[in-house]
Amino acid sequence: MITLSSDFGSPYPAAMRGVLLSRTDARLVDVAHDFPRQDVRTAAFWLREVLPYFPPAVHLAVVDPGVGTARRSLVIRAGGHALVAPDNGLVLPAARALAASDPDSHKGATAAHGTDLDIYEWDAGDPASHTFHGRDVFAPAAAAVHEAGVGAIADLDCVRPADGYQELRFPEPEADEDGVTGEVLVVDGFGNAVTNVPGDVLAGRFGEQVAVNGDPAPVVRSYARVAAGERLLTVGSHGNAELAVNRGRGEAAFGVEPGSPVRLAW
Amino acid sequence: MITLSSDFGSPYPAAMRGVLLSRTDARLVDVAHDFPRQDVRTAAFWLREVLPYFPPAVHLAVVDPGVGTARRSLVIRAGGHALVAPDNGLVLPAARALAASDPDSHKGATAAHGTDLDIYEWDAGDPASHTFHGRDVFAPAAAAVHEAGVGAIADLDCVRPADGYQELRFPEPEADEDGVTGEVLVVDGFGNAVTNVPGDVLAGRFGEQVAVNGDPAPVVRSYARVAAGERLLTVGSHGNAELAVNRGRGEAAFGVEPGSPVRLAW
Amino acid sequence: MITLSSDFGSPYPAAMRGVLLSRTDARLVDVAHDFPRQDVRTAAFWLREVLPYFPPAVHLAVVDPGVGTARRSLVIRAGGHALVAPDNGLVLPAARALAASDPDSHKGATAAHGTDLDIYEWDAGDPASHTFHGRDVFAPAAAAVHEAGVGAIADLDCVRPADGYQELRFPEPEADEDGVTGEVLVVDGFGNAVTNVPGDVLAGRFGEQVAVNGDPAPVVRSYARVAAGERLLTVGSHGNAELAVNRGRGEAAFGVEPGSPVRLAW
Repeated sequence: MITLSSDFGSPYPAAMRGVLLSRTDARLVDVAHDFPRQDVRTAAFWLREVLPYFPPAVHLAVVDPGVGTARRSLVIRAGGHALVAPDNGLVLPAARALAASDPDSHKGATAAHGTDLDIYEWDAGDPASHTFHGRDVFAPAAAAVHEAGVGAIADLDCVRPADGYQELRFPEPEADEDGVTGEVLVVDGFGNAVTNVPGDVLAGRFGEQVAVNGDPAPVVRSYARVAAGERLLTVGSHGNAELAVNRGRGEAAFGVEPGSPVRLAW
Repeated sequence: MITLSSDFGSPYPAAMRGVLLSRTDARLVDVAHDFPRQDVRTAAFWLREVLPYFPPAVHLAVVDPGVGTARRSLVIRAGGHALVAPDNGLVLPAARALAASDPDSHKGATAAHGTDLDIYEWDAGDPASHTFHGRDVFAPAAAAVHEAGVGAIADLDCVRPADGYQELRFPEPEADEDGVTGEVLVVDGFGNAVTNVPGDVLAGRFGEQVAVNGDPAPVVRSYARVAAGERLLTVGSHGNAELAVNRGRGEAAFGVEPGSPVRLAW
Repeated sequence: MITLSSDFGSPYPAAMRGVLLSRTDARLVDVAHDFPRQDVRTAAFWLREVLPYFPPAVHLAVVDPGVGTARRSLVIRAGGHALVAPDNGLVLPAARALAASDPDSHKGATAAHGTDLDIYEWDAGDPASHTFHGRDVFAPAAAAVHEAGVGAIADLDCVRPADGYQELRFPEPEADEDGVTGEVLVVDGFGNAVTNVPGDVLAGRFGEQVAVNGDPAPVVRSYARVAAGERLLTVGSHGNAELAVNRGRGEAAFGVEPGSPVRLAW
C-alpha cells in the first residue's frame, strides 16, 4: 500500500499515480492533495494526525517549496512504515507518531540521531525535471521502497544513511495554576481551530465555562451540545482542545488563525 | 466494495480510509466528500441518485451535524446493499432506491417499520472521540459489515433492530390542468437547478416553450440545443425537470436556489 | 486499468465509477474531475501531459459541452492504450503523445486519416439520458473496451471506423533571431503560466535575464532560486517555458492568462 499526500491540487497528482502504477501493483490511497500550498507546517500536522490510522504502508508526501534546490530527498523508516518526502520537516512529526504507535516499531542500530527512526537520503541522480520531484524523484523512490519492502530500504541502490535532516516540531503549551497558554496549530475545513493544548486539561470541566482569550465559552463534548451559531470549546478528534462554533466557523468567532496565541483561563 | 461519502472535505476522509484498510481488504470507492457541510438533505438527494449505479456494496455515508449527541448510528440493509450512517435521514432515500432497483431486493420478516428495508442500530459503546464518528464509529462498523457480509448483519455483536429512525422524504410536486408546481431540490456544480418535477411531464413538449415561474423557456433534450447563454428546460440525468443555461448557470438565470418554488405552466 | 477524467466536479464522477464497477473489475484511477468546466482545450493539454505517465490503460475522458447533440462518441487506439471520449478534440493531443511514447505503438493498416491512431466511432443507440453521456455512454464503452482488450476494439458490436473526427492542435511558437513568440496554454493551480515555448530555447540562458513581454526576468532551474515573491522564467515539468513567481502566482505578476501572447527576447 502506498499513500499519497501533496499540495499539488489537480491534475499533478495523476502524474505521480501514473509513475507509481508503471512500477508497482501496490494499492494507492490518497490522503489529501489540497494541503495549503507550500505550507509544510500545516501538512505536517495533518500527516501526523492521519497516517497512524493506516496499516503498514509507504507514505509518499510532497509539499516542497525547495524543489530543485540542494535540499535532500528522504526515505524514513518508522516501525513497519516508510515515509518518502523532501527534507523540510514535512514527515518528521508523522514518522515519530508512526514509530510510537506501531507495535512492531523498529529501534535498531542504524537509527540516525538517537531516535527510533531510520533516516536515509535518496539520491537518484539527475531527475527529468527541476520543478516536479513528486513525479520524477519521490514517486519512483516510493515505488522502489514498496517493491523492496520496508525492511530492505538500506539495500536499495539510491539509498544511504542521511548525514542530517531538517527537524520540525510543534510548540508545546505552557500550563500554570490559572490556566494554559498555547496556540492555534491549524484551522480545519469546518472552521474548527485546533490548538496544541491537550484535551486532558478539559477533562474535569465539561459543562463549565472557560475563558478563551478573555471571553468565556462552554466546555462541551461535541458541537451540537450548544445552539447553532454558539461558540464552544471541545476536545477534537486529534485529542486537542478545539475552538468551534456549532454549525458555524470557530476561527472567525474566536478571531484566531494558525499561529494565534490561545489562553485558556480557569 | 465499500463506498465513502461525507461532507468532510479534506483530509478527514483519509482517516476513515486508514481505519477501513486496517480492518478489511475491500475495494474503497469515493462517492464524494464535498457535500455542502452539514446539509443532510442535499447529500441525501445525491446519494439517492448515485448509489443505485453501484454493484452490491457497503455504503458508508457521514453528514452528521448531531455527532456526539444521542442520535443513533444505523446499519440498513437494502437488497444486496448495506448502508452505514448516522440516524438523521441521510441514507433513507438512497436505501429505498437501492431496495427498489435491486433485483435480489430482500423483503424479509425482520424488516422494520413495514418497509422492505432492514434497519439496525449499531452500538459500539464509547467511541474514541465525540466529534469524529466517521472515523471512530462508522468506518469500523462499515468494515465489520463488509467482513461479515450483508446477509449476516443481524449476527454482528454491536447490532440490534432499530427501535425507530429518522425519516427523510423529498416533497412531491402537484400537477393540475394548467401545469405543475414543484420546487428546486439541489443545484449541481454546473449551476443546473434540479427540481422534484418528473421529466415525464415534458415528454410531449420538446421544442415548445413552457412558462417557468412566469417566464417562457424552451423545452429541449440537451443543453447545446440552445445558444450559449440561453435559458432552457430539460430532463436531467436523474430524470427530473432541470432549469439550466447552455454553458452558463441556470440557478442564477432563473433566480432560484434549493427550496425555491418552481411553477411550470402549459 | 481505467483512468477517469472530467470537468464534472462532484458527485457525478461517482455515477461513472458505479457503472464501470458494475461491468468490470478493472482498477480505476482518477486523473482529475476539476478541469475548468466545458473547457475542452485546457483539459486536452493536461491529458496530453499526464496520460503518458500511465502504463497501458483505457482512458475515459469527458469534457462535453455538446452532450446530447449529434457529435460522435470516439474510441481511439494509441499504442497499447485506448481513449474513450466525445468527438471534440479532447483526447487527440494525448492520443498522439501516447502513440509516440509507447514502445509497442501500433501503426497498423486500419489507421484512420493517415496517423498511427485507430479512430473508431462508438454507437450504443439511444442512451438513458441526453445530458450525462459520461455515465450512460462513455463509462459503458470504456468498460466494454477494457473487457475486450485494446487489441479487440474493432470487434466490438457498437464500434465502426470513424468517418471523421474533430482535430485539436495547440499553436506552435515562432522563433526568430531575437527571440521566440508563443502564448500561454494554461495556468496551473500554483499560478504558473505554462507556455507553448519549448524549454530548449532556455538551455544556454540559465542565470541570465530574458525580456518577457518587455520586462526582464531571470532564467532559473527551479522556483526557489529566486527570493520569495520574485518573478522568474523556468522550464516546467512538461518541458515548456513557464512564467512563475517563487511562492507566488506567476500569471498575476506577468499579467497573463490562457491565450495571452508571450514574447521572450534575447
